[in-house]
Amino acid sequence: MDKLRLGIIGIGNIGSGHVGNIISGQCPEIEITAAADRRESRRAWIRERLPGIPVFNEGEELIASGKSDAVLICVPHYQHPPLAISAMRRGLHTMVEKPAGVYTQQVREMNKEADLHPELAFGLMYNQRTNCVYRKLKEMIDGGELGSLKRVSWLITDWYRTQIYYDSGMWRATWAGEGGGVLLNQCPHQLDLLQWLCGLPVRVRAFCHEGKWHDIEVEDDVTAYLEFGNGATGVFVTTTGDAPGTNRLEITGTLGKIVCENDRLVFSRLAADEREWCVSCPEGFKKPEWETFEVPTDGENPQHSGVLNAFADRILHGGPLIADGREGIRGLMLSNAMHLSSWLGRPVDLPFDEQLFKDMLTERCRHSRHKEDADITFDTAGTY
Amino acid sequence: MDKLRLGIIGIGNIGSGHVGNIISGQCPEIEITAAADRRESRRAWIRERLPGIPVFNEGEELIASGKSDAVLICVPHYQHPPLAISAMRRGLHTMVEKPAGVYTQQVREMNKEADLHPELAFGLMYNQRTNCVYRKLKEMIDGGELGSLKRVSWLITDWYRTQIYYDSGMWRATWAGEGGGVLLNQCPHQLDLLQWLCGLPVRVRAFCHEGKWHDIEVEDDVTAYLEFGNGATGVFVTTTGDAPGTNRLEITGTLGKIVCENDRLVFSRLAADEREWCVSCPEGFKKPEWETFEVPTDGENPQHSGVLNAFADRILHGGPLIADGREGIRGLMLSNAMHLSSWLGRPVDLPFDEQLFKDMLTERCRHSRHKEDADITFDTAGTY
Repeated sequence: MDKLRLGIIGIGNIGSGHVGNIISGQCPEIEITAAADRRESRRAWIRERLPGIPVFNEGEELIASGKSDAVLICVPHYQHPPLAISAMRRGLHTMVEKPAGVYTQQVREMNKEADLHPELAFGLMYNQRTNCVYRKLKEMIDGGELGSLKRVSWLITDWYRTQIYYDSGMWRATWAGEGGGVLLNQCPHQLDLLQWLCGLPVRVRAFCHEGKWHDIEVEDDVTAYLEFGNGATGVFVTTTGDAPGTNRLEITGTLGKIVCENDRLVFSRLAADEREWCVSCPEGFKKPEWETFEVPTDGENPQHSGVLNAFADRILHGGPLIADGREGIRGLMLSNAMHLSSWLGRPVDLPFDEQLFKDMLTERCRHSRHKEDADITFDTAGTY
Repeated sequence: MDKLRLGIIGIGNIGSGHVGNIISGQCPEIEITAAADRRESRRAWIRERLPGIPVFNEGEELIASGKSDAVLICVPHYQHPPLAISAMRRGLHTMVEKPAGVYTQQVREMNKEADLHPELAFGLMYNQRTNCVYRKLKEMIDGGELGSLKRVSWLITDWYRTQIYYDSGMWRATWAGEGGGVLLNQCPHQLDLLQWLCGLPVRVRAFCHEGKWHDIEVEDDVTAYLEFGNGATGVFVTTTGDAPGTNRLEITGTLGKIVCENDRLVFSRLAADEREWCVSCPEGFKKPEWETFEVPTDGENPQHSGVLNAFADRILHGGPLIADGREGIRGLMLSNAMHLSSWLGRPVDLPFDEQLFKDMLTERCRHSRHKEDADITFDTAGTY
């Protein structure tokens, strides 16, 4: 293979963005050889840009066509696992947009299928893992520079969306169509990064507010309290209703505090381990000495193209993926646990009762509102 | 009266600080004319600094002595309301250190007594209300510059204390002696400022961790989720276990976001009301325009001396207090509600069941640990 022959399933907001990146030359080892969308308007859009490639109505048709060696799945979340399973059964390498799915049971099926095909590349579009500040932070945490985790606080309230955003697609922001709101659509990145950096919490208490800032039935405002296995705690606050909003991640360990905001990492590094200092210092109010400085990074942030290029590299040359598809379930566990905690009005331990979550979600889907499809596709550049 | 004749009851960490401020000339209208402490070591300390003034063992003796026209009450929290009530009954102007008391029922008694003596000045030592950044913030919020409250987040984790701090006094960090931990001792300032700036929440869900970072029986780590009457939400995170810690208050309204950190106020002011923008903007991802700038203040932060000078001014010249004593109950309601929520493991609505709180506190006092008195007094300059 000279180039990876990629089929794109779903050419909505994000699928169109991938097409744009690839045809503008950002993914030199990838060639789009097929596309699929249920909407004629989107099929016309892709035909105009890539004349001559086969364009299908259904993802399953693309998968069965043999026109590509890999698929990129960019359809509404519920369809991620079934399409990925079909693709892997047909021997296709598979890249799935976030979230991995809507509920963990369906994602477990997808992961089980992936385990049957170790020869296939299976990745998740966690493009924010390519950001130099998060990569550097991961390296520092794994290298022990923060010591043991004590506290994490992520205010991620800059996912602003207007009402027309929610009115733009019939599946958007409905239980039946999307399966959730800000936790399912905007926050899978941060939920993945949180578990990637700090590990999965063992307990979650979340307060999800549905339709608080928009005329939608799902949550657009969430505050969650987290407890980790070693006793560390955290808060995770998100919304699509705040402007201009904040994206500030603070992690405190026994060796200091690091703040990630405005694409900068600022580390306050202690000269002593706080846990040892606390019991040995002869003064009542004195903190260990510390120095605060900005942590240099490599400045690289290749985002979606970076994830796709690593995917192609994996298939063509055996290199590493940015995020193995099987890891997608972890952020979704966190998201599902937050929903479940809010629905039950009590803390939820992880792993949680996945059947109960599914049942409660299904009940919501049964009363999900019908929306007219406005068939609007936005340019999402710079929004993720 | 030329000068206010002040009696100081309690010459521990904070009382000694007040004495130092006054004798160094920071309170030109105040003269210390009496002092009281139960510890001989502290009585010796004050005799050395103010030879000739009457020094009592008990606050009640000072109050009955007629040696002062006002008292400053700096004893362990439980004794604040009974001493204040005695002082007011004797016709003494009364300034009470924070917190107003340990449980709201006793503070209601104190406030009831104050209502019987409108001629007396009754103030609370909320010295952080004198800080120019909080005064400016209050002015901006009250002036409508932020619009309606949407979200507040206060990370106040820079109240670091070592183990020896807790070992320094037998009343410290015990249910029977202090009635709580970081919420009762360090955070009354922020709890007061929070209610002063944003109003009291109507519902609280808190997670208080007792003895998490220190060998103490009360909480030294708290995460609380707040709901306000208009639907706004908040988080309040505090601890005495983090170093270097953070003090970052962020308030978002419909007209923008303001962040108070490192003694700076940074305002991101929207060009349009977000609530109107959300439903009228024809684009899906677009925020209203905004400008971010540092808000100038008058730079003044007279702290404890400022509170005492206003108290003297009130008595001598009829000026305004920094904080009326009756307002002390509001921060305490918040603190009590957080404790109660954590003890019950569920959200607590305000006003809460004050008898239930008292009963649950009393039960904890019954099993409170006995501590040896190390009789250590710290220099607290710069720690509040």
